[in-house]
Amino acid sequence: MKETIQLHKETFIKELQEFLRIPSISAVDKHKGDVKKGADWVAGSLAKAGMENVEIIPTEQHPIVYADWMHAKGKPTVLVYGHYDVQPPEPLDLWETPPFEPQIRDGKIFARGATDDKGQLFIHIKAVELLLEENGELPVNIKFCVEGEEEIASPNLGPFIDANREKLTADAVVISDTSFLEPGQPAICTSLRGALAMEVNVKTANSDLHSGVYGGGVPNAVHALIHLLDSLHEEDGKIAVKGFYEGVPEPTEELRKEVAEIPFNEQKTKQDLGLKALYGEQGFTFHERTGIRPTLEINGVSGGYQGEGIKTIIPCEASGKISCRLVGEQDPGQVYERIEQHLHDHKPAGANVTLKQFIQAKPVALDSKDAMIQKAADAYEKVYGVRPLFPKEGGSIPIVENFARVLSAPVVLMGFGLPSENLHAPNEHFHLENFEKGIETVCEYLRYL
Amino acid sequence: MKETIQLHKETFIKELQEFLRIPSISAVDKHKGDVKKGADWVAGSLAKAGMENVEIIPTEQHPIVYADWMHAKGKPTVLVYGHYDVQPPEPLDLWETPPFEPQIRDGKIFARGATDDKGQLFIHIKAVELLLEENGELPVNIKFCVEGEEEIASPNLGPFIDANREKLTADAVVISDTSFLEPGQPAICTSLRGALAMEVNVKTANSDLHSGVYGGGVPNAVHALIHLLDSLHEEDGKIAVKGFYEGVPEPTEELRKEVAEIPFNEQKTKQDLGLKALYGEQGFTFHERTGIRPTLEINGVSGGYQGEGIKTIIPCEASGKISCRLVGEQDPGQVYERIEQHLHDHKPAGANVTLKQFIQAKPVALDSKDAMIQKAADAYEKVYGVRPLFPKEGGSIPIVENFARVLSAPVVLMGFGLPSENLHAPNEHFHLENFEKGIETVCEYLRYL
Repeated sequence: MKETIQLHKETFIKELQEFLRIPSISAVDKHKGDVKKGADWVAGSLAKAGMENVEIIPTEQHPIVYADWMHAKGKPTVLVYGHYDVQPPEPLDLWETPPFEPQIRDGKIFARGATDDKGQLFIHIKAVELLLEENGELPVNIKFCVEGEEEIASPNLGPFIDANREKLTADAVVISDTSFLEPGQPAICTSLRGALAMEVNVKTANSDLHSGVYGGGVPNAVHALIHLLDSLHEEDGKIAVKGFYEGVPEPTEELRKEVAEIPFNEQKTKQDLGLKALYGEQGFTFHERTGIRPTLEINGVSGGYQGEGIKTIIPCEASGKISCRLVGEQDPGQVYERIEQHLHDHKPAGANVTLKQFIQAKPVALDSKDAMIQKAADAYEKVYGVRPLFPKEGGSIPIVENFARVLSAPVVLMGFGLPSENLHAPNEHFHLENFEKGIETVCEYLRYL
Repeated sequence: MKETIQLHKETFIKELQEFLRIPSISAVDKHKGDVKKGADWVAGSLAKAGMENVEIIPTEQHPIVYADWMHAKGKPTVLVYGHYDVQPPEPLDLWETPPFEPQIRDGKIFARGATDDKGQLFIHIKAVELLLEENGELPVNIKFCVEGEEEIASPNLGPFIDANREKLTADAVVISDTSFLEPGQPAICTSLRGALAMEVNVKTANSDLHSGVYGGGVPNAVHALIHLLDSLHEEDGKIAVKGFYEGVPEPTEELRKEVAEIPFNEQKTKQDLGLKALYGEQGFTFHERTGIRPTLEINGVSGGYQGEGIKTIIPCEASGKISCRLVGEQDPGQVYERIEQHLHDHKPAGANVTLKQFIQAKPVALDSKDAMIQKAADAYEKVYGVRPLFPKEGGSIPIVENFARVLSAPVVLMGFGLPSENLHAPNEHFHLENFEKGIETVCEYLRYL
């Protein structure tokens, strides 16, 4: 298979470049047409690969692409999930080459969506194409379910899964939207934190007031907001919201050992990120804090005068963004209510506080001993010569929980990205070596299922 | 005199409109030429009034206009200070008529600078003109010192006063840049708070980090900033900076009584401003808090994602604006150092904190029993039928302290504005009744000095 891939390599990369040229930015209204183009392109590419029953299914926002090949009687069925939408490319001035004009430099392809998730999704389409080309049939039954709303928290895919349980039913869900731990060290992520995001708004007066006239005598919306936000953490890094930790499991010795195996160079991490010190919940290591513990981060804050110099006003409005990563049995709805209660309890006199919720996703834990996951590990080992580790990802892929719950199938997070590939940032790229080896790995996996 | 004013009224208002049409915005570079036009206009207007030795004195930024009339042998000398520069007019969409196209509605003239300070300054120019016209001479010696940098904290006037002590020497400095307490209730402000303003910047990493990958494990610049800013106040509204209150006098019974005489309707204030509650230092009334107590207000805050929805980042930078109003013997330089020390002491691990200072002005207390002030009160009483009160203004006119100190002369803050005239805000205006009566009051004052 390796030789066949080498033979087709240039064509595949040309096709991927075509895919990456589509600015399918799901968050931005004016790109709605481009997102549709992305769906059309994926559907065309699946049909070309030999997939059957290719459908573009409209939703309230961006379409879902479905296809299947179901002729491997008595063999398991694999559902491949991926997404063809991408993050906005801003800030544009930090890109070395334009985000939607893919360029190859130094064995990497640079473009928005290169690693997240067009390049990784395309691995599966090409693997199926090669297998069908070589054998006229596939070793297993395959379904594709590809969405265009992952970067906006999949508002329509959850309901679609609920409504199409039968259509999507499978023995394993395979997703390539995660990363290796470092070059040469594959990883199958077995835990994703849940997510919860919200905005707090504080209002204290009809308009900003002159601090010379009213200073010291009226509430200040920025004071109130920072007081509320600062109250969310204890001095020792613990989250101060009552009941926040309910459902968070005490990490077992085994889990802590597993996490401790993930390589970590504190000095290098600090140097790479420009940190003077690490930070976090007392009593836990860096990888525990970022992988298996829940968090509450303030993602942004604004209020009052923010220009150059000074304007001596008492701001009447202020706003903050908060997001949490959740683990274990933490319920996002309940955590939201508890944060709401906390803000209510800590509200300074004279402040009107309102809360708006954005994202909500349950945590997911996958069993690394599941056969479907172990066979994926075998495939990696065959191609890369190294057995994957099973890290606990700090991030969230909200839809994983829906797939696992509704289809009662193991989810296999077969990532081919690298943590250094500027996911969601300027100069996103994907290593072509992992694109090629990824196709080989997926072929190996499907053959031996 | 009243009749003469009535006779000239329309011409005077036409001239004032001409003055108000000049967008002499000192803070904005592209208006440098307009600020110069403002200086020329004032110089022309002083010459037309009969003032002598009119000079336009260039500074590093905007010019100072000087003029005098020194033929009243054996009579006192009054130095009139005012400013011809104005605040930026933004937000423009909130103006009912354009800020630099003065319009008269309902007895008020609407334009940027109408009350602050062009209209109030023009009162003095017209008073001198009428007195000279009527008598061929003035009852006292007069000097004008008019600057174009008041709205940017007078960076060049302080040094100019220091360098021109002799030239500016006077028995009283008269400034009309303050307000009545309410319509019909004149006020001579006898206390101005000092001012101090700064910006705090926090940096924690080279770039924003993904909260899924690093959340819980690295410092967050917004967390650090809000923690620092929230630490500046105690729960009871007191300022928590060690040594901040040094030099703040315990208010005497007499002072408290004087402040208590200032009318205050809590219900109406709350309703007008849209407040749910007042706020401030325990143990002090509203007018004490806003007039004779020092304050520390956060004027603005920003960091991380501030757009719509959510972006799950860990911000690497955050910034806040702080300003203080100072009283008594508080020294702005020392207070600045103490805030710097406080921020240093409360700095969370991993945060780089830098501080930048903008404004610094000492507090000023004037003696309401001074003859020059009492004679001004007589003049008001004659024209308005009501004796002025002597409020403690919460605001700052930084240059007042320089005049008082360098010239060793009483400063008479003869305001003709109203607190409701949208100072520094859209739809700034000036009541024409106070423009006319102001001219009459100043004539009365100069006659009986």
